Amino acid sequence: MQTISPITEQLIDLAIAEDLCAGDFTTDAIFDDKNVSHGKLIAKSDLVLCGQFIFTYIVEKIESRALGIYQPVTVTFFSDDGARVKKGDVIAEFSGSTQILLKAERTALNFLQHLSGVATQTRALADLLPNMRVVNTRKALPGMRELQHYAVRCGGGHSHRFNLGGGTMIKDNHIAAAGSIAKAVQKVRDFAPHTLRIEVEVESLEAVREALDAKADIIMLDNMAPDMMREACKMIGDKALVEISGNVTVDKAEQISDIPVYCASCGSLTHSVHAADISMRFGK
Amino acid sequence: MQTISPITEQLIDLAIAEDLCAGDFTTDAIFDDKNVSHGKLIAKSDLVLCGQFIFTYIVEKIESRALGIYQPVTVTFFSDDGARVKKGDVIAEFSGSTQILLKAERTALNFLQHLSGVATQTRALADLLPNMRVVNTRKALPGMRELQHYAVRCGGGHSHRFNLGGGTMIKDNHIAAAGSIAKAVQKVRDFAPHTLRIEVEVESLEAVREALDAKADIIMLDNMAPDMMREACKMIGDKALVEISGNVTVDKAEQISDIPVYCASCGSLTHSVHAADISMRFGK
Amino acid sequence: MQTISPITEQLIDLAIAEDLCAGDFTTDAIFDDKNVSHGKLIAKSDLVLCGQFIFTYIVEKIESRALGIYQPVTVTFFSDDGARVKKGDVIAEFSGSTQILLKAERTALNFLQHLSGVATQTRALADLLPNMRVVNTRKALPGMRELQHYAVRCGGGHSHRFNLGGGTMIKDNHIAAAGSIAKAVQKVRDFAPHTLRIEVEVESLEAVREALDAKADIIMLDNMAPDMMREACKMIGDKALVEISGNVTVDKAEQISDIPVYCASCGSLTHSVHAADISMRFGK
Amino acid sequence: MQTISPITEQLIDLAIAEDLCAGDFTTDAIFDDKNVSHGKLIAKSDLVLCGQFIFTYIVEKIESRALGIYQPVTVTFFSDDGARVKKGDVIAEFSGSTQILLKAERTALNFLQHLSGVATQTRALADLLPNMRVVNTRKALPGMRELQHYAVRCGGGHSHRFNLGGGTMIKDNHIAAAGSIAKAVQKVRDFAPHTLRIEVEVESLEAVREALDAKADIIMLDNMAPDMMREACKMIGDKALVEISGNVTVDKAEQISDIPVYCASCGSLTHSVHAADISMRFGK
Amino acid sequence: MQTISPITEQLIDLAIAEDLCAGDFTTDAIFDDKNVSHGKLIAKSDLVLCGQFIFTYIVEKIESRALGIYQPVTVTFFSDDGARVKKGDVIAEFSGSTQILLKAERTALNFLQHLSGVATQTRALADLLPNMRVVNTRKALPGMRELQHYAVRCGGGHSHRFNLGGGTMIKDNHIAAAGSIAKAVQKVRDFAPHTLRIEVEVESLEAVREALDAKADIIMLDNMAPDMMREACKMIGDKALVEISGNVTVDKAEQISDIPVYCASCGSLTHSVHAADISMRFGK
Amino acid sequence: MQTISPITEQLIDLAIAEDLCAGDFTTDAIFDDKNVSHGKLIAKSDLVLCGQFIFTYIVEKIESRALGIYQPVTVTFFSDDGARVKKGDVIAEFSGSTQILLKAERTALNFLQHLSGVATQTRALADLLPNMRVVNTRKALPGMRELQHYAVRCGGGHSHRFNLGGGTMIKDNHIAAAGSIAKAVQKVRDFAPHTLRIEVEVESLEAVREALDAKADIIMLDNMAPDMMREACKMIGDKALVEISGNVTVDKAEQISDIPVYCASCGSLTHSVHAADISMRFGK
Repeated sequence: MQTISPITEQLIDLAIAEDLCAGDFTTDAIFDDKNVSHGKLIAKSDLVLCGQFIFTYIVEKIESRALGIYQPVTVTFFSDDGARVKKGDVIAEFSGSTQILLKAERTALNFLQHLSGVATQTRALADLLPNMRVVNTRKALPGMRELQHYAVRCGGGHSHRFNLGGGTMIKDNHIAAAGSIAKAVQKVRDFAPHTLRIEVEVESLEAVREALDAKADIIMLDNMAPDMMREACKMIGDKALVEISGNVTVDKAEQISDIPVYCASCGSLTHSVHAADISMRFGK
Repeated sequence: MQTISPITEQLIDLAIAEDLCAGDFTTDAIFDDKNVSHGKLIAKSDLVLCGQFIFTYIVEKIESRALGIYQPVTVTFFSDDGARVKKGDVIAEFSGSTQILLKAERTALNFLQHLSGVATQTRALADLLPNMRVVNTRKALPGMRELQHYAVRCGGGHSHRFNLGGGTMIKDNHIAAAGSIAKAVQKVRDFAPHTLRIEVEVESLEAVREALDAKADIIMLDNMAPDMMREACKMIGDKALVEISGNVTVDKAEQISDIPVYCASCGSLTHSVHAADISMRFGK
Repeated sequence: MQTISPITEQLIDLAIAEDLCAGDFTTDAIFDDKNVSHGKLIAKSDLVLCGQFIFTYIVEKIESRALGIYQPVTVTFFSDDGARVKKGDVIAEFSGSTQILLKAERTALNFLQHLSGVATQTRALADLLPNMRVVNTRKALPGMRELQHYAVRCGGGHSHRFNLGGGTMIKDNHIAAAGSIAKAVQKVRDFAPHTLRIEVEVESLEAVREALDAKADIIMLDNMAPDMMREACKMIGDKALVEISGNVTVDKAEQISDIPVYCASCGSLTHSVHAADISMRFGK
Repeated sequence: MQTISPITEQLIDLAIAEDLCAGDFTTDAIFDDKNVSHGKLIAKSDLVLCGQFIFTYIVEKIESRALGIYQPVTVTFFSDDGARVKKGDVIAEFSGSTQILLKAERTALNFLQHLSGVATQTRALADLLPNMRVVNTRKALPGMRELQHYAVRCGGGHSHRFNLGGGTMIKDNHIAAAGSIAKAVQKVRDFAPHTLRIEVEVESLEAVREALDAKADIIMLDNMAPDMMREACKMIGDKALVEISGNVTVDKAEQISDIPVYCASCGSLTHSVHAADISMRFGK
Repeated sequence: MQTISPITEQLIDLAIAEDLCAGDFTTDAIFDDKNVSHGKLIAKSDLVLCGQFIFTYIVEKIESRALGIYQPVTVTFFSDDGARVKKGDVIAEFSGSTQILLKAERTALNFLQHLSGVATQTRALADLLPNMRVVNTRKALPGMRELQHYAVRCGGGHSHRFNLGGGTMIKDNHIAAAGSIAKAVQKVRDFAPHTLRIEVEVESLEAVREALDAKADIIMLDNMAPDMMREACKMIGDKALVEISGNVTVDKAEQISDIPVYCASCGSLTHSVHAADISMRFGK
Repeated sequence: MQTISPITEQLIDLAIAEDLCAGDFTTDAIFDDKNVSHGKLIAKSDLVLCGQFIFTYIVEKIESRALGIYQPVTVTFFSDDGARVKKGDVIAEFSGSTQILLKAERTALNFLQHLSGVATQTRALADLLPNMRVVNTRKALPGMRELQHYAVRCGGGHSHRFNLGGGTMIKDNHIAAAGSIAKAVQKVRDFAPHTLRIEVEVESLEAVREALDAKADIIMLDNMAPDMMREACKMIGDKALVEISGNVTVDKAEQISDIPVYCASCGSLTHSVHAADISMRFGK
């Protein structure tokens, strides 16, 4: 069970408004309340499924604003979110009012294909990096934060801080303003909730040393070469969690897969999503 | 000048809420009202710029909810939306309250990078298909419809119907329900606003013939092989506008670039966007 | 000065969203940021003006979401809200960005014409009934409550209770359920805020008597013939305020204008509004 | 079945908030959870019904926010939307919680009476102009766009462009800015989605000629005298759709009913609506 | 039955968004769709119950956004709103999905404890002042207006004017601007809806006299000593309703309980609320 | 500078809507656009100031919806948020449109008094517990989360986790479901973002031991007697942060002030707020 927040509900309503607020003349010209359709959702490429309940939720949202009498839509998915689905597999079957189905189709698929896209590319990366967490970043698409986090987890990844308030992250400009890593860490420790770890982003081994001395909880190695990462990990041992960032991609995964870091963060999991190819076919 | 609608404004507020609703402890621990920063937006790959005014709008949105006294942020872009920018180019300079800049950075960049990504990949496809319109589809990201349309146009593309009410589109299931293309066209013509053209999606030359007989205004050739497209274009001549769809991609552009169609629609322009790589560097 | 509430602001945003959320291709095809227009608002029939500040507010709302550089619109009205304007009079002059003006035109005029319509028909009725208040009812148009009340007052009318919580009104079914007018009045007096008067709707002289005995603050004579109204007024004297309702129209005003009632309520002032005819002419 | 968009849902919530946000002291003083009422909706004049499902939707909206236990309301309508109803006819019967019924009554009736008013006056005009489409305009009431379009169709009319993005419309100022009708048409054709027809508004036969030469899809004859309209229609033949506008009213319908135009647009269908007279009577 | 308005529904959604918009990692780590819990709400001090239906409404709101399959939550309260509950009493039992219960717990309790707090302290004051109405003020907590009014009534109090439009209240600065109490009353009487009583706030016996002469409907004695209140009441008799304000507290109730006023208003009932102590215990 | 999120802005709009949506007949009857007032905010008891910028923001919000011409309001505060203010001190001076001031007064004061109340009671507790952090809880008032956190910090306190996603907290029912503290910690560590510390709530020394063995980051001693707290602190040393909860009040502060814990959490700081007494006096 996944509970969405009012923010995600609002995004879904914006999406419905965008597509439906000026009517659907094609559908209304041809179909009436009694028309019923059946059909299937079919994977057109290998993918990791994500978003089946959102799909159904959108159909029901449109039904909740359908005035008049009609045959409610039922959608039955055959795999759980997170499952690997093969090209050609039937993902789901549906049945119900043709008008509802046609008005919901595009919006519901847009969510399902995007989220399955996120899960699919997370899965690919996570499979290549079995010894560390693959985590997302705040490089997310507007309004999709909650759902993209869910999709990353469905793909075998983990959540990084949800937002600016879900963690601390001391970067270059914080350090420059505070005067040193030690001073920056101290200021953040004094101010931030005790429920949050202190994370410091570093680009050199010298900075790793300073972060360790400042007792940072997490040290993020930004854009380091693999050898420098290894060196940093040796210095850090279990004194802090190690996160790596920058060029964490499928192409370069082999170079880093054996480095003993806690997690690898990857912006493209959510900012550059290749939508999963899923088609909605009408007909028995 | 681009006017956004209340729907887009709501999306921007959702994005801000997602990232900022639980505070930013790192920034607030280190910076106060008097801190001022300067910096640049730099292209880290070749790209077509899109979204500079959204970027500034987001900064101003956050300023409008900043309580207290601070140095307002100014952002100066050096290219217009739609301009080609080279890797390494300085896209913009900014200056103002460090707190505002750090709180706005991620949300503003998420929009800018996504929209520049849309413009960049549209530009690439449009350059390969100079004899036809490249148009987007309704396979858009939730809440981003208006901005994605704008980005497609900045990239040299054109808008397809904005939503279900901005055009008509008769597909398989409409035809099956109506009994024939002729009957479906007639029903839609009888019902839809006279301001909308009648578009029919076809997969065979026989269907092209029927659509012509029904006096469809636009005939959309769906997933046809290039040779069949050529044949269809001959049949249609100037009796209808011709749109092609399915596998309209950079890879296959060469095969279709000489076919005399009016437009080619491409879902991946908006559903599978590779974010443009733009970084925000602080410091003079 | 008239302060609108967030509810009215939301209505204005809904109106803007309805008209603008899918773009304005005609305007954007022809005009750019630099185009500037001048023009006038002209009365095409005699009217009472109402809504000039809403008109300007809508223009500014659209400007607040205009991204890019443009010439701000200025609108100068030549009469105050509530003033009588003659057919052919220039109501206002405007100047500024053509794109803004064309995108705002219809929405801003829709409000201005509707509110001036309300004010105009209220003025007509109030002029015929100088010895009593002309008041509106809750038969209002959705979302327009606050503005319609304002327009009624601009037309020389007065506000009735703003909503279900802005007064009490004991009708047939309340009386039947309570058992008698006396019991109903007692129950409402016991429960309602002491800041609200107790109003009873009656259809017979017998009921007038009961309402007087129950010490109702306001007695509403519903659909009575003029003679019965006169009789009722004699019975009531200054023991309660008298309101009349039902068929309070311009046509029948003469029959009731001399009856000494406190106020006459009229649903059509707000539920059946003939829009004032105002046109927006471009050109010096 | 009619699907409403989130925008219409928001309007309904604004209407409910306006009327109910400060409580209903009269009702709450007298009725409790157990009170149940029955009653009827009765036409007090001849009308064309429109809005029965909105009526029920509003009742259900209020029920969805009723906290506690109560008897749900059922409403049964006896005619379909679009049906002609005679003065005195029982339109519907209802039964259920008195508190719900009294709190929903005014808001639900306000919608029903307005929409039935739109349908009724559209029907009257459409009956007089059987050889052409009667279409609405963008002169609509704020927030009511979607529902008014529906009501116009229930009254035998058709939709014009839903909003600025649902069609193109080249007017005087566009032509002046572009330099000529030909240039304006070309600019709009180059820019607008291919799914939209190109419409040009003209006031002279010379302009008709230019619009034809520019291959406009729709020519709108604005405020022409009947004879000039006839002349224009001869010139145009089937080379474009012809729309007439200005003074399309019941009074003048006879003068234009035989002119072979495609459609006649009429602003007063939606901007000057005489509410249908429907009353809600309690009691068996 | 208590009907909440869309404004209160929005507040509830804001409260849910605040707490849940970034997920609940503790709960999601440990529980899945199948986990079910039982438990009780227990009073940890004597209190007057208020808010049971809001409690349930919030649980259902969260269920309405729960995607997937789960055991719905049932909550059974054992006392009505307004009932006195003893320390240690079981207020309610609940059973259902553990995930739903844990995600709803804090938000639902925050409402229940606050509203029961309002009811409890209103009850305490009302018990000490049995001869007059105890009424709330507009010193309410943001967004809670409707629910706080309900809670005050559950505690044996009454509603004062709901908002600025639900009554009139002439204070010092109104009187100073108008020139005298007589002139201020006249202006308000001329302008305000006839459904509202005219209330004047006074601080001296001289002002009481002026308010009586002006025929104010309600005279509010602000911060007067008990003896002066008695004097004022003698002067007023039944010519106006008397309200007292300022230092109406439990501590001082004895001094005023015998003064024959109509109502006593108390800001702290809603602005300084001691939350009722209620705990949610899991386990059979 | 304090940046509020869209959620807080929505709460402010709800508060304005509650109070102003039905007009302000008293003010509008007496004052017009030209009336200007001056005055002061005065502390009527000792307090810690909090909310000055919210106060001004609300005034400006109302101005932003004031249609027409008026004298803008200026408010000058004489102390910073967080400053101690003495009974009788002038907190601020204001000047501007009387209509704006009277319409904003109550809503703006409701926020200012509540937030200053939170800051004042936090300050009192923090002064008694100088050796530990005083932190708030999620027992907050609906919609006020962000502002209450800010007020706690202004009063010398610190933020606990902002919401369910801003920390982890393993309680009884989590432990029971997981089987042991060790298993619960492991599950949460495996699932939650690495940016969050793992907190375990314990009630016995045995549980303290288990939490230490499970390497919990934070151990929360719930409702322990002071002596048991001391014992627990000895066991824990610097192996975890120690939080105490339950009966952390001004009355009992002396008993715990010397125990070497990291923080003490207190629900009443935000759920049972005594509003600070601040009055708005008009006149020079």
